[in-house]
Amino acid sequence: MQKITIVGLGLIGASLGLALKQANLSNIELVGNDINSNNASRAHKRRAVDRVEGRLERAVQGASLVIIATPVLAIREVLSQIAPHLPEGCIVTDTGSTKSEVMAWAREFLPESVSFVGGHPMAGKEESGPDAADANLFRGCVYNIVPSINATETAMRSILGLVDLVGARPFFVDAREHDGMVAAVSHLPLVASVALVDAVSGARNWREMSRLAATGFRDTTRLASGDPVMSLGICLTNGESISHWIDQLIESLQKYRDLLSNTDGKELQDSLARAWEARQRWIEEAQAPPQEAIKVEVPKASELASTLFFGESLTKRGEQVLKRWQESQRGEPEPEPKR
Amino acid sequence: MQKITIVGLGLIGASLGLALKQANLSNIELVGNDINSNNASRAHKRRAVDRVEGRLERAVQGASLVIIATPVLAIREVLSQIAPHLPEGCIVTDTGSTKSEVMAWAREFLPESVSFVGGHPMAGKEESGPDAADANLFRGCVYNIVPSINATETAMRSILGLVDLVGARPFFVDAREHDGMVAAVSHLPLVASVALVDAVSGARNWREMSRLAATGFRDTTRLASGDPVMSLGICLTNGESISHWIDQLIESLQKYRDLLSNTDGKELQDSLARAWEARQRWIEEAQAPPQEAIKVEVPKASELASTLFFGESLTKRGEQVLKRWQESQRGEPEPEPKR
Repeated sequence: MQKITIVGLGLIGASLGLALKQANLSNIELVGNDINSNNASRAHKRRAVDRVEGRLERAVQGASLVIIATPVLAIREVLSQIAPHLPEGCIVTDTGSTKSEVMAWAREFLPESVSFVGGHPMAGKEESGPDAADANLFRGCVYNIVPSINATETAMRSILGLVDLVGARPFFVDAREHDGMVAAVSHLPLVASVALVDAVSGARNWREMSRLAATGFRDTTRLASGDPVMSLGICLTNGESISHWIDQLIESLQKYRDLLSNTDGKELQDSLARAWEARQRWIEEAQAPPQEAIKVEVPKASELASTLFFGESLTKRGEQVLKRWQESQRGEPEPEPKR
Repeated sequence: MQKITIVGLGLIGASLGLALKQANLSNIELVGNDINSNNASRAHKRRAVDRVEGRLERAVQGASLVIIATPVLAIREVLSQIAPHLPEGCIVTDTGSTKSEVMAWAREFLPESVSFVGGHPMAGKEESGPDAADANLFRGCVYNIVPSINATETAMRSILGLVDLVGARPFFVDAREHDGMVAAVSHLPLVASVALVDAVSGARNWREMSRLAATGFRDTTRLASGDPVMSLGICLTNGESISHWIDQLIESLQKYRDLLSNTDGKELQDSLARAWEARQRWIEEAQAPPQEAIKVEVPKASELASTLFFGESLTKRGEQVLKRWQESQRGEPEPEPKR
């Protein structure tokens, strides 16, 4: 019997639990822990974990795999607390929204005998908490994988197996690069969404205006309803990159403000059309079959069942991805993704 | 047999057609017109109209009700073209996103024998065009009604009947006030969405970043995929109000930029929590039963069938709304909406 521990049973942690349970792995015990015992019992009630262990040290004792799915700011504390209690060879991963700080904390606290592989599934929804958890939350989503310098091949195989099991597409990326990119496509939308609510809800006649707010307002501000603790962690661990992108957005807004006063409207029209096209292209590519560089086939759940951590049945494609990772470890340049 | 003409068979026009057809009105002929004959035939194929009439003048000849559902900039041209061909007593309404300019155009072009009532349903979706049309698009949505100074009571009854028929909630509002409010809750989100796409899609590594863009990016930028012609019309006819709100958003973004550099994070935390709460309250109120001031009961579709334009069977509540409108026409203050 192998033990997998999920620390943090919010939307992401409980969804991972449900996805793992759905895979029907044999000989796996899924243990959950959450600083909030109410969260823990709701996740347990939904059968996202086999059992709950309230003491963090005990939750990770003897675990083969520990998944930290807390808000990013709590990861530091969790790593420092669990470090002395992890068995040798244990694999630790996280699901935090930013990676540079997390990788630094892992280096700071974890012993060399433990393999840390940073993770970040690009999945989410408006609701948070275990009640909103969904076994299919990760299906088709990009799952960032940031291996630490001393992650073993076994650890990499296991995390690839986990990513495959939940239906996501692994994407290998360096922590700094990850944080720069998600600042643009994930954290800037979050700040824009919050700033939008902030700007209009402060208005004298907000109460009246708000009755006219419809689906456009709802969607544009959805991210402002994300867990504020999570949003805070994102902002505090990726402030520099986010600030850069806020400046770009302000510049763009100023451009539109200028275009609005330009009476002929031709430039405004072109600009609106360009944004429309850019988003259209993005939608088409997002819906297109995943590209070589991020599509990785790893064993099916059935094959994985008994080999989750010692994945000897990785398919050829999986081996190729591993090889690329190993080469990147040796500092060799990664091949350009196919266009 | 009464004739209703819909000019502009995009998402809104075709959806209105489908909603009217769904109501199964007897003795009504629904005629459609679109400058784009492809749009017109697709709408006809979907049975959003009984027949298509390609010549605008002929489409409105003999019509009891003309609904102009074109992008806002085209409304001026349509009004000027149809004006000489409208029968006496004809009721004309529109669905344009802004109202001040539209009301001015109606005053400029329409003869006194025609009743104009401005309209603006707060409904929409990402897809545009008649293929995306939906008979239930307006169900539960707020439908702004801006009566012109010379709109007859019959015209008001008819438009109230139309709003009820499509399942929407009428909201009486003055054109200037309307434009100020929708600038904040509808047009600012549009510009923010476009500016966000503009800011990130111009980046050197956009192609790579875009693969990480997920549901958060998708929702926050949804409005950038709206019909650019419609967006242009909104910007050009409501530029002043939108500019004001762009300034508010820039100010708010600058505040968040400053808070990101504030290392203790306390203020940032409070600010995120306030935005979270403001949006939460909005969601709760949006889901709450409509308030007195915007809930109006008008006859059921069955009662309306034969009296659409001479609505003698308006219920008591409908009469009250009409009375309030009549009072407002005389310059009496509107009672404060119940809280």
